[in-house]
Amino acid sequence: MDYGKESILRHRQCKGKIAITSKMPLETMDDLSIAYTPGVAAVSMEIAGDVAQSFELTNRANTVAVVTDGSAVLGLGDIGPEAAMPVMEGKAVLFKALADVDAVPICLATQDVDEIVRAVELMAPSFGGVNLEDISAPRCFELEDRLQDLGIPVFHDDQHGTAVVTLAALINASRVTGRELKDLKVVFSGAGAAGIATARLLHEAGARDMLLVDSKGVVHAGRTDLTPIKQDMLSITNNHGVSGSLADALIGADVFIGVSMAGIVKPEMVRAMAADPIVLPMANPVPEIMPDLAKEAGAAIVGTGRSDFPNQINNVLAFPGIFRGALDARAPRITTAMKLAAAEALAALVTDPWAEQILPWALDEKVAPVVAEAVKRASPSK
Amino acid sequence: MDYGKESILRHRQCKGKIAITSKMPLETMDDLSIAYTPGVAAVSMEIAGDVAQSFELTNRANTVAVVTDGSAVLGLGDIGPEAAMPVMEGKAVLFKALADVDAVPICLATQDVDEIVRAVELMAPSFGGVNLEDISAPRCFELEDRLQDLGIPVFHDDQHGTAVVTLAALINASRVTGRELKDLKVVFSGAGAAGIATARLLHEAGARDMLLVDSKGVVHAGRTDLTPIKQDMLSITNNHGVSGSLADALIGADVFIGVSMAGIVKPEMVRAMAADPIVLPMANPVPEIMPDLAKEAGAAIVGTGRSDFPNQINNVLAFPGIFRGALDARAPRITTAMKLAAAEALAALVTDPWAEQILPWALDEKVAPVVAEAVKRASPSK
Repeated sequence: MDYGKESILRHRQCKGKIAITSKMPLETMDDLSIAYTPGVAAVSMEIAGDVAQSFELTNRANTVAVVTDGSAVLGLGDIGPEAAMPVMEGKAVLFKALADVDAVPICLATQDVDEIVRAVELMAPSFGGVNLEDISAPRCFELEDRLQDLGIPVFHDDQHGTAVVTLAALINASRVTGRELKDLKVVFSGAGAAGIATARLLHEAGARDMLLVDSKGVVHAGRTDLTPIKQDMLSITNNHGVSGSLADALIGADVFIGVSMAGIVKPEMVRAMAADPIVLPMANPVPEIMPDLAKEAGAAIVGTGRSDFPNQINNVLAFPGIFRGALDARAPRITTAMKLAAAEALAALVTDPWAEQILPWALDEKVAPVVAEAVKRASPSK
Repeated sequence: MDYGKESILRHRQCKGKIAITSKMPLETMDDLSIAYTPGVAAVSMEIAGDVAQSFELTNRANTVAVVTDGSAVLGLGDIGPEAAMPVMEGKAVLFKALADVDAVPICLATQDVDEIVRAVELMAPSFGGVNLEDISAPRCFELEDRLQDLGIPVFHDDQHGTAVVTLAALINASRVTGRELKDLKVVFSGAGAAGIATARLLHEAGARDMLLVDSKGVVHAGRTDLTPIKQDMLSITNNHGVSGSLADALIGADVFIGVSMAGIVKPEMVRAMAADPIVLPMANPVPEIMPDLAKEAGAAIVGTGRSDFPNQINNVLAFPGIFRGALDARAPRITTAMKLAAAEALAALVTDPWAEQILPWALDEKVAPVVAEAVKRASPSK
């Protein structure tokens, strides 16, 4: 099937993917008097007296804003807020189908961090959480940091969704290949939102030997071109002061994590890795190395972002359950402990992992409730 | 029934009134590939190439933001954005039930006009229209004015919804009592959002003898306490330079329009009006004069904001159809011609008006489609 063509056709027929529905009847004058005036005045006064009641008397506790500025949409780049809308509606459909979360796309006509921060602060009273989406690095880091004290969870999915699912994949891939996280030599290709967040979460999970590689080579202290965030990453990566290219970095590595560009890993680079390497080339739609090539070159386990190969590493395994759990816990933010709990729960859902199945199927309905429960339990507010 | 008590109970049970629903299936991997990645990339690129396609390929063309700052909620005043939420959800329920419009409540944590303007501008790419709601005067006038060139309709319902329904009521009340709009002597009690917008629309409809009365008395050129907007109203009201109290103004008047406070009109003031006066005391929940008192004092026709008396003058007769029509026409704004067309269509829906029925029933399902059609026809873009 030509998914692009079919997708345009279906979107044109349906005029998009989401709609609003009512949870209360509206047929009689009594219905109107209860759902709207005059009865609703008492509901408003209840909340005016105690703002926390907005989580009980409105749909706020189940509603997440999916906020983007259209600057880094899928692999398409900076295509603007209107063009980002179909992707945000897609997230809303996934939120609803998998975790019964009501998600509202908010596509903002600015890429100024101050303006985005302020817009999110201003609209926060309507929402129980904020999913930041497809916002380019390094602005996404500052943006998310500045919104952590909003009182509701603010979570940049491109960072942490990817980090959680990649960690889950790595937990099971390690199990299958008889390794432990703390012993892995991990090499990242890509030091953007996903690469940095994944490296950070892996560090929290115990990984101690990691190299970040960007378009200029290994991120090391001798470079003068590092952004502040990449500078900062030197505290948890590259302990031995290594420099060089991606090919250099991969020599002897146990794990390759690709969040970069199509085709930049060659078979000989996989051959230079440690025995039975774990290769996760997640660039979309074309991975850093195609799975068949990676396997021929000796990869023990291969995972990509694609649904047409085994081991799809897809954020959809994480964000619906994470928000469901955070909303249910009324967590003020999504902590590292909650992300680690999500990754562990996700990995544990595969009872008998093997090379071709280290993660559950993307649309498995059992996933979000289990992840949600783990996240809720790990939430500091409960 | 104690509507307030019942309303709190029902809101607590349902956890609010609205939810998101999906318009596309999501059961198979193909569904995922069409609704989300990889297929959705083609949809996004289609919009990136032609932003107008966002009205065809997403739900934007059917989605209205209901934006408030919580500063003038119902008759409750400045109760804040969280407490405004039940009212905004109520509007969303009415939008959906009566006109199949998807309305999203956006309650903003600011009352600064610049900030509200900017927030609405920033989120506009996600919406096909903006319904401003329960924002206090005089900020609501500037706010709406500054958003008229956004490219999508921006409509402050407290102003124009009230104006349209009041004009419709007056058209039929004039018919019943054998008068013409151009000959009516109209007195307004209340010079806030609703009073000023209604006076303006009545002027456009041909009314030529109007007095605005605020808490300090008749609005006249000799007063030094007038806001700029009230100053401005002198160009279409008070041609004869009248001053005095509400009681003075009502002597010989044909029409009383109350958008002010409970109980301020006394029976003797109605008795001093012209023969067979039209009395529309719309203060909520307690009108300026109770219908039975007004009738005893000689009122030929009485209309209030309440559902438990005849002739309910309720915005719900206007805003769903007006937005449906504006969205269907893809109108860039809602013009005076569109408001006049809405009022005329609404009045014409009552085939045989009489003293106890000058307007359709608030939940009459025939109303919104007829109003929408009239608004669409009057839209400059078609």
